[in-house]
Amino acid sequence: MPAVRVDLLIVGGTVVTMDGAKRVIENGAVAVRGDEIVAVGPTADLSKRYRARSVINAQGKAVIPGLINTHTHVPMTLFRGIADDLDLNEWLTKYIFPAEAKNVSEQFVRVGARLGLAEMIRGGTTTYCDMYYFEDAIAEETKKAGMRGVLGETIIDFPVSDNKTPAEALKYTDRYLAKWQHDPLIVAAAAPHAPYTVSTENLKLVRKLSDKWKAPVLIHVAETKKERDDILAKYGKTPVDYLASIGFLSDRTIIAHSIWVTDEEIGVLERENVGVGHCPQSNMKLASGVAPIPAMLKANVAVGLGTDGAASNNDLDMWEEIDTAAKLHKNHSGDPKAVSAEQAFEMATIRGARALHLEKLIGSIEAGKRADIAIVGLGSLHQTPFYNVYSALVYSTKASDVETVIINGRVVMKARRLLTLNENAIKKDANAYRDKIIKSLGN
Amino acid sequence: MPAVRVDLLIVGGTVVTMDGAKRVIENGAVAVRGDEIVAVGPTADLSKRYRARSVINAQGKAVIPGLINTHTHVPMTLFRGIADDLDLNEWLTKYIFPAEAKNVSEQFVRVGARLGLAEMIRGGTTTYCDMYYFEDAIAEETKKAGMRGVLGETIIDFPVSDNKTPAEALKYTDRYLAKWQHDPLIVAAAAPHAPYTVSTENLKLVRKLSDKWKAPVLIHVAETKKERDDILAKYGKTPVDYLASIGFLSDRTIIAHSIWVTDEEIGVLERENVGVGHCPQSNMKLASGVAPIPAMLKANVAVGLGTDGAASNNDLDMWEEIDTAAKLHKNHSGDPKAVSAEQAFEMATIRGARALHLEKLIGSIEAGKRADIAIVGLGSLHQTPFYNVYSALVYSTKASDVETVIINGRVVMKARRLLTLNENAIKKDANAYRDKIIKSLGN
Repeated sequence: MPAVRVDLLIVGGTVVTMDGAKRVIENGAVAVRGDEIVAVGPTADLSKRYRARSVINAQGKAVIPGLINTHTHVPMTLFRGIADDLDLNEWLTKYIFPAEAKNVSEQFVRVGARLGLAEMIRGGTTTYCDMYYFEDAIAEETKKAGMRGVLGETIIDFPVSDNKTPAEALKYTDRYLAKWQHDPLIVAAAAPHAPYTVSTENLKLVRKLSDKWKAPVLIHVAETKKERDDILAKYGKTPVDYLASIGFLSDRTIIAHSIWVTDEEIGVLERENVGVGHCPQSNMKLASGVAPIPAMLKANVAVGLGTDGAASNNDLDMWEEIDTAAKLHKNHSGDPKAVSAEQAFEMATIRGARALHLEKLIGSIEAGKRADIAIVGLGSLHQTPFYNVYSALVYSTKASDVETVIINGRVVMKARRLLTLNENAIKKDANAYRDKIIKSLGN
Repeated sequence: MPAVRVDLLIVGGTVVTMDGAKRVIENGAVAVRGDEIVAVGPTADLSKRYRARSVINAQGKAVIPGLINTHTHVPMTLFRGIADDLDLNEWLTKYIFPAEAKNVSEQFVRVGARLGLAEMIRGGTTTYCDMYYFEDAIAEETKKAGMRGVLGETIIDFPVSDNKTPAEALKYTDRYLAKWQHDPLIVAAAAPHAPYTVSTENLKLVRKLSDKWKAPVLIHVAETKKERDDILAKYGKTPVDYLASIGFLSDRTIIAHSIWVTDEEIGVLERENVGVGHCPQSNMKLASGVAPIPAMLKANVAVGLGTDGAASNNDLDMWEEIDTAAKLHKNHSGDPKAVSAEQAFEMATIRGARALHLEKLIGSIEAGKRADIAIVGLGSLHQTPFYNVYSALVYSTKASDVETVIINGRVVMKARRLLTLNENAIKKDANAYRDKIIKSLGN
């Protein structure tokens, strides 16, 4: 039988497939043709069946599905560390909103997006879900970097940097959703900010737009107790129930945080197939509370992990979110068996893909899926010795252990060298913005 | 005025002194002669006053006091990831104690200590506080590596790897304390395991030994609710009160965890000048609870941060402890202003030095103190842009950003190359032990 030609063969690694059987293949291989994984199996088998244009030796390394960051605001990397140790309301209204009002422009979001994209790729993230302004420019930067994104344009009831009214934002979003239809990397989305910043009427208009374009809708829900109480007082229902009651929820909805939700609301999220982006580090830093993740996992809710923006974290490091998720829920529930290493890693991969409604395309290493793969060293001091792959990945691995990253079949980082982004230029641009931002806040 | 000769001059960095005034010196310099810091100030000033045999340019980097890990069991790096997602009791009795019984030897602790020392130095830790068996061998490895340590030999009421009775352990400890008197790097200590594993009588004998040699005493206290309840049932007092009542506590005591303590007990810790090693990640992973750190800080207790052993964390990364400490207590208290970045960094440096009763020697960059210094890059993507040094260090910096480490005036890592330890040999030895350990547990 003559060997079949493929573009890329990764051989000799520990392939952590995250497929339905959670197969872990020692001395495993992955064959990639174009943007697609065509085969996964033992190296001995695949190296006979396939002849590749390019071969990557992954001996001593883990070959994992690229990590999925289900909630961030990527340009906010430019505000990293600008105002810490404050409560959410003070942080938003005294620092972030004014800093945004004075600085956010199309150029700002491009510079911030490039910084965040570079940081995410360095850490093995291959898909991210974003909510910000000028999202079309973010989509352009994301595509240029070769990253996959579910990218939501913000709709909010007060004037913001790109659109002065929700009506304008809805028009922008309509054009934006049209432009990116059927793109291989970019899933354009609408992102009404939150139930407390967008009227019922505008939420209904967003739902219509989502139906028109079959586009995802991203929204913050039940992040703080205050939000939950305010929504309950205003609408007579808690946030998820309220959104369900106005017909806002669907299997295209992706909600961030969902900390203050009842068991009944968790049932609604499961029935409606709503995706959830859980951001443990941001929630801790802003003292927002602890989302009921063990209950969501028990109910089989599509919950993934997210970093949130770098202004409330302060990084886009998914490895720290995975580690923190596994530890936080043990302590919060008092059960050291809650959220196992495997479950935490699942949230960062295949369950995260479900949260973004992309589980048919990404989230596991399986034939027929897009080739979104990270190759991760397992031989650093902090990972030595090696007993169990999920323990090693969740409790010991750092972003700095990620060596090679492939997105949609394209190698975007090789042996820690970024191939689609210029790291020095990015830092230079970011630092120039820092100076402008400091000056703007001094006024 | 002719320039004064020194051995080392670090110039051009952001010197985060952690001195009484919490000075941060931009374009700062540190002059080191022998093992001692002789001057700290602006580069312009020090480069005139001192002529150095060796100069390190720290432009764009932070020059910080070496980090202080106030609680670990360094050889347990060899058990990293062997058994995760279990409760403390099951984890200890089904996995760790049997694995220890079958594997721990003098050679085992040497190999594990070298692995942990290398990992700690890579992450900028310059002093650590340890409790284990064959502690004399750990002290020898620590000294060879050029690391500073407060190293406690375990005393416990059942037979362990090195000593078969507490009486034997007390004799071992007496010889051990004698041997290391006045060592420049090693502070030998006694380490009775915990109030629930060591009798009152033996605790009193340890206190005598400590008085004889002026040696620190390390002990786990109030790590779990069960321990607190058991001690209360057995002795009619909660753990700290019980230890105070038997005359065990002094300004040489260092207690780990102290999660289940009352406000009154916090008062006792402050009055007796007891040091506390707070291990947020280990406590979360084992679901042990959350130590009342904001109350301890308010009472000015000498509380530092620790990683605990790598079997319950699973690494010796102080940067993650600092970040987690700052976030965990915000969320647990519901106050996003609790444990500021500066307070978290203080626990990892000068307050950690107080916890180990070494604040006159280490914990800050001040003339007259030992030269324990880490030089940390501030220019990585995940640290860009830079607004505030404490925010950058606490919320964005990773162990992988640490570049150069100096302990007692000696450069032990330079530009990320370890100078006192052989990384490849360490990994090879650790992996050989892994194979033996797996085999031993298969029986």
